[in-house]
Amino acid sequence: MILMDGKALAEKIYSELREDVSKSAKKYRLAVILVGENAIIEKFVEKKKKIGEQVGIDVRVYHFPESISSTELRSRTAEIVHEEKNSGVIIQLPLPAHIEKQSILNAVVPEKDVDVLSARAIGNFSVGKSRIAPTVVGAIQELFREYKIDVKGKAVVILGAGALVGKPVAMWLMRESPVVTVITEETPNPEEILKRADIIISGIGKPGYITGDMVKEGAVVVDAGTSESEGKIRGDVDFDSVSKKGSYITPVPGGVGPLTVAMIFKNMLALAKK
Amino acid sequence: MILMDGKALAEKIYSELREDVSKSAKKYRLAVILVGENAIIEKFVEKKKKIGEQVGIDVRVYHFPESISSTELRSRTAEIVHEEKNSGVIIQLPLPAHIEKQSILNAVVPEKDVDVLSARAIGNFSVGKSRIAPTVVGAIQELFREYKIDVKGKAVVILGAGALVGKPVAMWLMRESPVVTVITEETPNPEEILKRADIIISGIGKPGYITGDMVKEGAVVVDAGTSESEGKIRGDVDFDSVSKKGSYITPVPGGVGPLTVAMIFKNMLALAKK
Repeated sequence: MILMDGKALAEKIYSELREDVSKSAKKYRLAVILVGENAIIEKFVEKKKKIGEQVGIDVRVYHFPESISSTELRSRTAEIVHEEKNSGVIIQLPLPAHIEKQSILNAVVPEKDVDVLSARAIGNFSVGKSRIAPTVVGAIQELFREYKIDVKGKAVVILGAGALVGKPVAMWLMRESPVVTVITEETPNPEEILKRADIIISGIGKPGYITGDMVKEGAVVVDAGTSESEGKIRGDVDFDSVSKKGSYITPVPGGVGPLTVAMIFKNMLALAKK
Repeated sequence: MILMDGKALAEKIYSELREDVSKSAKKYRLAVILVGENAIIEKFVEKKKKIGEQVGIDVRVYHFPESISSTELRSRTAEIVHEEKNSGVIIQLPLPAHIEKQSILNAVVPEKDVDVLSARAIGNFSVGKSRIAPTVVGAIQELFREYKIDVKGKAVVILGAGALVGKPVAMWLMRESPVVTVITEETPNPEEILKRADIIISGIGKPGYITGDMVKEGAVVVDAGTSESEGKIRGDVDFDSVSKKGSYITPVPGGVGPLTVAMIFKNMLALAKK
């Protein structure tokens, strides 16, 4: 079993980006829109700030109170997007429940939508007219390139059909793999389907859901699920049992997660350098 | 085996639309952009004109020569889209090979994009913010409603990953079915996968590709593939052998095809009446 080290790969990407940025006369700034108070989310934002410093990209956090209305947040987001100094804009998720999430995400124009979460950016990606990929797709592409995993000819099973993992990964793989199956937590007997997979990509956010007995010998297992459990970040994959079966596997933390963050910065430069 | 009669259902939809239109003070017009000379494609356009007459919707064809450039076609399309009298605009496919297809499709604003083929309209549909569905999705939804076929809990296999059938159908079903598998013509041993399906939806355009031995007893088989063979419209499904196994099956012609045409008009009214 080979561990796919997303953390090390992310560091490699940061070195490349830093060199890129240092050679450029242009100043780049990533705007992060943050709503409400949440220690865990704020930790993620702090992480982005630190990476920004490492790479030479300014990260500016726009922090709004939990009580902000959808309408107000939408118009503030539009202002932030139109601010020329902001090369890219991300909406830190999750947003409070009373906010119309997609309406806020749609306020980001495709040229600055480094997360590819606005309807327009998703549409562009879907028709093959986007220079960047959704961050989780980019992260998995980086891993597969680094570890020379070829999707062509491989049966892929995606666990989860959400906006952040399942949907964008399915959109991508429908162009690449001859058999793409999407299942969810509600699928009865998921092990029967998972066991047929050459490659499993999981993003449901259920700690330890996939166990070794659900996985074919030699399968590639990519864990894009993250959940909090007892103060720890945990993935969908029960690492101990699955690592005995899989050929390549991503750890959590240190696998897909750091790479999705790296893709925010890589995507931003790809869009801004146009 | 029950034949799903798309033609009859389309007629029912036209009656409803005609009543709708006759009650409205507004005049509706569907613009059809047609490039080049092709007897078969022109027949499809004629069909739309006849339906327009039946329903009370003006169908105006804008016919351009094969030699038109992408740039010119794009700007003419934009003009047609902005013409207030045109309530909806469709680009008659296929376009000549030298035309940048997606660029032309993207010139249609979502408010008039009855085919849901522009990147923006696809994005809106993908995030659940579209009042209409891509025509093939709408057609299958009409069939399933009429014949009381419930997708919930059913394993679906989609044959084909193209922009007109596979992709939009997958986007829709990822929200509805617990197991969605997409395979293509390149998939080895497709029968193994097709045989697991409770519902098969096919759109590869290979006459008679799916035979009875590939289908589970009692499966629902929706044939959204159309190809020309010896002057006849043929589907992906070998009707004679598959009809002996399937529970519900669409014929070609007279199945999905007439309903996708009906959805053009239904979508147009849904958008225009807003």
